[in-house]
Amino acid sequence: MILGIDVGGTSVKSGIVNTEGEISYHKKFDTVQWVNQQGFTPSLIKEIKVYIKEHPQLKGIGIGFPGLLSADRTKVLLLPNIPSVTDLPIVKILKAEFPQLMIRIENDAKCATLGEYHFGENKGSDNFMLITLGTGVGSGALINKQLFLGARGNGMEVGHILTSDGKTLEQHLGIHHLLEYAARELARTKISCLKNKPLTGVTLYNAAKEGDVCALAIFDYAGTLLGEALTTIIRILDINTFLFGGGVSESFEFISPSLNKVVNRNLPSYYTKDLSFRKASLSNDAGLLGAAGLIMHEHHVFNKVI
Amino acid sequence: MILGIDVGGTSVKSGIVNTEGEISYHKKFDTVQWVNQQGFTPSLIKEIKVYIKEHPQLKGIGIGFPGLLSADRTKVLLLPNIPSVTDLPIVKILKAEFPQLMIRIENDAKCATLGEYHFGENKGSDNFMLITLGTGVGSGALINKQLFLGARGNGMEVGHILTSDGKTLEQHLGIHHLLEYAARELARTKISCLKNKPLTGVTLYNAAKEGDVCALAIFDYAGTLLGEALTTIIRILDINTFLFGGGVSESFEFISPSLNKVVNRNLPSYYTKDLSFRKASLSNDAGLLGAAGLIMHEHHVFNKVI
Repeated sequence: MILGIDVGGTSVKSGIVNTEGEISYHKKFDTVQWVNQQGFTPSLIKEIKVYIKEHPQLKGIGIGFPGLLSADRTKVLLLPNIPSVTDLPIVKILKAEFPQLMIRIENDAKCATLGEYHFGENKGSDNFMLITLGTGVGSGALINKQLFLGARGNGMEVGHILTSDGKTLEQHLGIHHLLEYAARELARTKISCLKNKPLTGVTLYNAAKEGDVCALAIFDYAGTLLGEALTTIIRILDINTFLFGGGVSESFEFISPSLNKVVNRNLPSYYTKDLSFRKASLSNDAGLLGAAGLIMHEHHVFNKVI
Repeated sequence: MILGIDVGGTSVKSGIVNTEGEISYHKKFDTVQWVNQQGFTPSLIKEIKVYIKEHPQLKGIGIGFPGLLSADRTKVLLLPNIPSVTDLPIVKILKAEFPQLMIRIENDAKCATLGEYHFGENKGSDNFMLITLGTGVGSGALINKQLFLGARGNGMEVGHILTSDGKTLEQHLGIHHLLEYAARELARTKISCLKNKPLTGVTLYNAAKEGDVCALAIFDYAGTLLGEALTTIIRILDINTFLFGGGVSESFEFISPSLNKVVNRNLPSYYTKDLSFRKASLSNDAGLLGAAGLIMHEHHVFNKVI
């Protein structure tokens, strides 16, 4: 029995995960409240204690953090949302509190990638990349059945690669940035069903579904930027299966035409002939499941850490 | 005793390589002549026979090809300069001719990376990337002491990643493209010591050394583009040691200021604090040495091939 914890900037999600990838005792906490009240780490320890009390048979805890980790996976090196955890020997601290448990940490997007690998629709796929399009743009890759960490442990930060105007991919495709772009486009458009409606990922999706030209143009823009980024990523990683998760991926049907167009225009057939872009299957639970997968499938994860 | 062969678009270089990385019986053939006269593969076989006659104790042959290779490294999938070799079972053909020899093939830029790894100044470095700035822009990476091939065997094609104007990096920094850019800049410049001189990598270097503003601006442009590309590469591969080879790297002292500026502006200190950019040590022999290294250090190379 494994406890998976997915730490995010807004919420901390936790749950007991079984070998089938089923989650029980699912809980959700407010990250900012943890940080501002008792402090993040004391709050985390307190909640783990509640789980242990309810489930004394617990064997291990896997935790995903939205930041850069040390190569040896004993601490988080950079975690802007939760500064108190930065450089803290978090694994050592948790191990001291819970010596009977196996403790593992990993980057949250890499956890989500492991979640898709162990529990998603395409589980066991040797090579694929997951891109999550949400508040941020996260990503991870499985290469030859192993989580790809790069040379020093923090590769695959695809949200931060540069786009043609010098901004990062996330500064365009993170949902808030995308909605800002949409608002600007909408202001320049005469006719759109989005006029005078609240602008959200959902209203944008619905407008595109109705054939609204402005909404379709916004997803076309997102797909073009994603296509340019993937052209570069494919040349570096030679990977041909891409899963898309996160809120914005709900609109993937409207993003994929321009994405496909850009990638096919820029790459020779060796790269494009078996290229597959599709929606990820686990939605928001991928990170939590993957965090638990850190313990369940340890051999898959750690043999590439330096 | 190993025979290394470095196949290029203009010449085929060969030589006997010993375990110290010393090359003897160095030969150079005209690729186009091979292709147009007896055909590439018959010419290759003929020249290997000459080496075997002179060196009956030969144990193996490593060959670098400037193209995409099959994941199992038995053939070349895409070799624009030598179409007759594309899709040919070249390893099987050579093995049938020379059953007593070990035969290995690899991409030429990846061979050069292995050359630097086994025989260069920084040999044995666990993690580094080599970028060759010549007619084309090639690259390879050692990650955790292994040649990084990507998921399907042909990653690290960094010359073909996109830059901000939609062209590839090679379409800007390949020497012919860079000189075309230089010629355009020079035409717009009133005063430059390059006026009415033949424009080559060497004259450009000499002008920069004299402080010529136009020449310095051209290298500044090259460094900026390289810096943007490396920002993305570093985010994906989390690698912090970069070696630069090829003719254009002779001017590295003039390229590195803007390269450093762009990378430092775009990356947090985790990535930049131990970042090292320097010239590669083996110059033009890296590919030939690395091809021989395919045989000498086989365990380092092939355990990552799918």
